Amino acid sequence: VGPPIFTSERLYDKTQPGVVMGLAWTSMGGSSLYIESTLDKPLSYYNSENKKIYSTPQFNQTGQLGSVMKESSIIAYTFAKSFLLKRDPSNTFFQYASIHMHVPEGATPKDGPSAGCTITTALLSLAMNQSVKDNIAMTGEITLTGKILKIGGLREKTIAAKRSGVKYILFPEDNKNDWNKFPDYIKEGITGIPVGWYEEIFNFVFEKNVSNIKDVNNIKN
Amino acid sequence: VGPPIFTSERLYDKTQPGVVMGLAWTSMGGSSLYIESTLDKPLSYYNSENKKIYSTPQFNQTGQLGSVMKESSIIAYTFAKSFLLKRDPSNTFFQYASIHMHVPEGATPKDGPSAGCTITTALLSLAMNQSVKDNIAMTGEITLTGKILKIGGLREKTIAAKRSGVKYILFPEDNKNDWNKFPDYIKEGITGIPVGWYEEIFNFVFEKNVSNIKDVNNIKN
Amino acid sequence: VGPPIFTSERLYDKTQPGVVMGLAWTSMGGSSLYIESTLDKPLSYYNSENKKIYSTPQFNQTGQLGSVMKESSIIAYTFAKSFLLKRDPSNTFFQYASIHMHVPEGATPKDGPSAGCTITTALLSLAMNQSVKDNIAMTGEITLTGKILKIGGLREKTIAAKRSGVKYILFPEDNKNDWNKFPDYIKEGITGIPVGWYEEIFNFVFEKNVSNIKDVNNIKN
Repeated sequence: VGPPIFTSERLYDKTQPGVVMGLAWTSMGGSSLYIESTLDKPLSYYNSENKKIYSTPQFNQTGQLGSVMKESSIIAYTFAKSFLLKRDPSNTFFQYASIHMHVPEGATPKDGPSAGCTITTALLSLAMNQSVKDNIAMTGEITLTGKILKIGGLREKTIAAKRSGVKYILFPEDNKNDWNKFPDYIKEGITGIPVGWYEEIFNFVFEKNVSNIKDVNNIKN
Repeated sequence: VGPPIFTSERLYDKTQPGVVMGLAWTSMGGSSLYIESTLDKPLSYYNSENKKIYSTPQFNQTGQLGSVMKESSIIAYTFAKSFLLKRDPSNTFFQYASIHMHVPEGATPKDGPSAGCTITTALLSLAMNQSVKDNIAMTGEITLTGKILKIGGLREKTIAAKRSGVKYILFPEDNKNDWNKFPDYIKEGITGIPVGWYEEIFNFVFEKNVSNIKDVNNIKN
Repeated sequence: VGPPIFTSERLYDKTQPGVVMGLAWTSMGGSSLYIESTLDKPLSYYNSENKKIYSTPQFNQTGQLGSVMKESSIIAYTFAKSFLLKRDPSNTFFQYASIHMHVPEGATPKDGPSAGCTITTALLSLAMNQSVKDNIAMTGEITLTGKILKIGGLREKTIAAKRSGVKYILFPEDNKNDWNKFPDYIKEGITGIPVGWYEEIFNFVFEKNVSNIKDVNNIKN
């Protein structure tokens, strides 16, 4: 089938749990951008008296994020916690997890609210120890209740997504008119999925909508 | 009855507990604005020794709020706590609740004291697990004792409220003269309700003036 | 007796405990200004083991206060605590009280030391659960030992006080010469009360110089 043509922007061949591809928009055009999240300490350990000690929940961000994007990540964190509590009350990950989120590349300043749904997905992916499906990118501001709000630069983001080998792009329902007006050559080979609420993203990107039991088990009481 | 004409500004069809529609005023005119509030951790959980652990009360804000609006939210928080203590002493929500308040859209800086009564209502709605009635928007500065103070831009706010499908707009009694001078075409289809003290807002927006017992119960001792 | 003529600046018909009218002075003239104070959490509650837990003393301010007024409120807080300890050692309010002080209106920046005696009175009124007498306003810097220092703009403040229906204005003894020089039409209908020490204010504004026993009792051990 020949060699891939545009892969330089693709950081991951297969994303691991905690990592999700978002899309950014600058005066230079669009570009893909990864949200990475990981635990920065074990969820629990045994102390010298052989007592199980749980870590304290925390959420830190790096990646030269501006104030809007920092707030956006806190909104995503709050929403992810309440969403998982409803979806899978047995998953106690967030109760103990000290999480570090990073947005490469480290020297590039980033800002804006449109990675909200991507950050939410990265955190849920980490919490459930489940990768998102391949070839997916997403963009959309998220509110505390999971509503997905309109974003800018969908055209440039779509072009960037294709360049990174993305097959499905999830974007806010309120950007549907933008999408419909794009010429066919832009939409060729990529499927646009408009979403109104976060739940629609969740149902689309995760293979099975439950936690990966094996790994979550070890943090249960 | 035909299709709704102006709905693009309406984020929620039916607001959930913790969410209330306010109104903002800019040099560009008025616009509706939602105050969202939610718990960012469970009120309580059982630790490894099967002991019930309560969360610690906290109140965080996001949404690019300026210093006046941040203070306004703290005033609203203090007032909401003391108001609920008098209204329903059995409701211990605020004693444990770690609350995150957000004002979408995340990239738009917001400031001013006029969402005070809206924030108060959002927090009480969350605490009582009760939605406010539909089709209501409100604007008004609140003081620590629940007095509702005059605000600016009532005309623009009223127009924005109608555009968002609002049927009742609550505003400060001291703005009554403004309201009376509005031409009829502005007031058509919307009922203005002047209020002097917060209690009048509370009695108007909540169906039953008691906590939703089922949900509050689970945080009682 | 006819209708009241100037009432727009009067926020409260009857002030509640914790609220006292002060006076401000700007380039635009004088104006009345309320110091509001309230508890932002209950003094005590019963935890799950039915043990009485007392709240931790704290003092927070809102109202866009400048650094001088913030310090002034801290001086007032310190003085109020030591004053009450001497006056009524049985009153343990300040030992536990988490207090929120606010100065409406929320969007107006305020600064200066001249509300010191007003803040002191508001805090003592809250601690004793006793309203101050009606129709009183006051202005004066306070020192840590309760000395009342000279302030500016007494003329403008007196005019503003009258506009708000005030019958007695308390001001620093060192401003007595200013007062004596005011033309009669300014002093008509208002009684000026020069004070050198805070105790004189206290003795004038409170009906009974002891705590409202019924309400204070419930915070005693």
